[in-house]
Amino acid sequence: MTISLSIGPQNRKSPFFKSTLQDGLTSASIYNHMYFPTSYGDKSAEYDRLLKGVAMWDVSIERQVAFRGRDAVKFARYLTGRNLDDLQIGQGKYIPLCDYQGKLINDPILLQISEDEIWLSIADSDIKLWVSGIAGSLEYRVDVFEPDASPLAVQGPLATPLIADLFGEWVHDLKFFGFRETKLKGIPVILARSGWSKQGGFEIYLLDSNLGENLWAEVKNAGAKYNIGPGAPNYVERLESGLLSFRTDCDEYSNPFEFNLGRFIDLDQNQEFIGKAALQKIKQTGVKREFVGLQIDGPRFNSPPEDRSSIYSEDNYVGYASAAAYSPRLNSNIAVGVINTRHAIDGNEVVVDFSDHKRDARVTPLPMFR
Amino acid sequence: MTISLSIGPQNRKSPFFKSTLQDGLTSASIYNHMYFPTSYGDKSAEYDRLLKGVAMWDVSIERQVAFRGRDAVKFARYLTGRNLDDLQIGQGKYIPLCDYQGKLINDPILLQISEDEIWLSIADSDIKLWVSGIAGSLEYRVDVFEPDASPLAVQGPLATPLIADLFGEWVHDLKFFGFRETKLKGIPVILARSGWSKQGGFEIYLLDSNLGENLWAEVKNAGAKYNIGPGAPNYVERLESGLLSFRTDCDEYSNPFEFNLGRFIDLDQNQEFIGKAALQKIKQTGVKREFVGLQIDGPRFNSPPEDRSSIYSEDNYVGYASAAAYSPRLNSNIAVGVINTRHAIDGNEVVVDFSDHKRDARVTPLPMFR
Repeated sequence: MTISLSIGPQNRKSPFFKSTLQDGLTSASIYNHMYFPTSYGDKSAEYDRLLKGVAMWDVSIERQVAFRGRDAVKFARYLTGRNLDDLQIGQGKYIPLCDYQGKLINDPILLQISEDEIWLSIADSDIKLWVSGIAGSLEYRVDVFEPDASPLAVQGPLATPLIADLFGEWVHDLKFFGFRETKLKGIPVILARSGWSKQGGFEIYLLDSNLGENLWAEVKNAGAKYNIGPGAPNYVERLESGLLSFRTDCDEYSNPFEFNLGRFIDLDQNQEFIGKAALQKIKQTGVKREFVGLQIDGPRFNSPPEDRSSIYSEDNYVGYASAAAYSPRLNSNIAVGVINTRHAIDGNEVVVDFSDHKRDARVTPLPMFR
Repeated sequence: MTISLSIGPQNRKSPFFKSTLQDGLTSASIYNHMYFPTSYGDKSAEYDRLLKGVAMWDVSIERQVAFRGRDAVKFARYLTGRNLDDLQIGQGKYIPLCDYQGKLINDPILLQISEDEIWLSIADSDIKLWVSGIAGSLEYRVDVFEPDASPLAVQGPLATPLIADLFGEWVHDLKFFGFRETKLKGIPVILARSGWSKQGGFEIYLLDSNLGENLWAEVKNAGAKYNIGPGAPNYVERLESGLLSFRTDCDEYSNPFEFNLGRFIDLDQNQEFIGKAALQKIKQTGVKREFVGLQIDGPRFNSPPEDRSSIYSEDNYVGYASAAAYSPRLNSNIAVGVINTRHAIDGNEVVVDFSDHKRDARVTPLPMFR
């Protein structure tokens, strides 16, 4: 059954929206109050392109929440448990954000743009509200705003040669999450080595939303010799790679330790940060659930389940699978999910209830494809 | 061109989701991270039902942000500029929420549930993040949570007899925004006289999300004799009635005075509240833009514009129309929009650019249908 997406000004269109339509967009979602392209009708081709070639994704929905002012760095340190001692302009950092109860509320990439300006490239929640509320109530001297910045991801093993063709050989020097402000044929952009896949690639942050069609065309034209094509953050590849999908995998009780993000939370630093006391307590007590992979028996999945699927062990509910698909590379059905710690053991046998049928499954460590 | 909506656990389904599918849902959006039914395929029938009969709408997307604790009322008073001196349990209030800069960030209905518990029935932004951030940073003694509450709206001139059939004659005593906790055939609900139309009606807040199909069926069955049918917050009726659609009509610079919400902001109360200083300044300076109606020339609109339409006066940009449609009751094309104050004069002639064509229009006061 197909439900058509209502489109209107209550949500924003990406600067690349027209280009994605011209390139055959067939399905979309809404993310950070923007229309989010999810497929161009051939999911198998989109997967192959990402794994073997190069794909271009409109990920404008990765909105930027910026704050500028004399307290910018101090404020950033209060917002996240990640230790920012070695923060530097031009090098991004993945920073889980928690609320005062230590619950995960987003997992952005932090980009320090200048001495007094920081951007958070966010997942799907209104972090601008969160950040401006905290800044306002605690009187941090920062202005919170949304810059005109819309990422276009270029992902896959051929992304690097393509990006080098477009920008020059210096792109090889960018470390992961490294970024630089530059221009492409006069179009102002930030080029970052980043992207929500494990296939390598870059994100080109368009800095003038009037030039979306131009940037799309530049990348598409230069990519023609690499057989570039459109795509979207890939459902199957992210499962294989064990990437966290914030809203899909988490619930309102999730904390970063459950998702193996403890390495990004420095509880020992002197710095006070939001959720520190709560996170210390959670760490002391130990987590009750963990993010794991699952190998699932039975015939190949043709399409992803619309809902979370309950996981049972000996008829007891022990967790949920949040996404499941057939993995061509593993030649197996796989899933990710959150399961009670005592069942989060490699090889542990469970049953997953896909609402219309049940399947046997085994817990496996993440990432499933190495 | 139709884009299909991607459905997955990254957004939630309403407790009425299955029922809406069975009743022929054809299009949807996403609102407060939930799937939001927008049409059942016959917009004209949906309009007629609302105007002349009774319609049932799945508006679970009106999420509730609750806070409970000894500071609940004190905290509510800090969150909004609305004077809450006469707040009482069982009587809701429309409360614009602003940030520290006086910008509108949501416009919920506040429901005081008990001495120490308040709910906000919100429009589309993550007010739970906002509220928990403010409560946490300023150490208000409240717990912020989302209760299990999903509104089902029953709207139209025949809503009252139907609701009386279902709940009893006491429903006539509910004032507008008045509410009462009760049961319907064992299903726990809050019944409120409320709804996003000017046709009268109620919202039944389902308090057990496992019973969505039951509640839908009860209303549908009892409504059969009134020819009830499914619908959604109505695009045309809300234009005629001049209702504010928070995300559609506002932008990131909007303040409540621009939307004639000044009567809900008490700047003279002693109570300190978020944005008070900024709003005092805005009021002193005077607004630069206003929310107005527009009568638009030319042939009948068949479908709503996907984008905001720029408004020009003598070739100068003076504002935007955020929604436009043909109104059967006014026998005219109408729109709402935000226009520079010096052009917000009844009868003022402007030109609206609908991207593929321009039309002459005249500013009219809201609501356009009285």
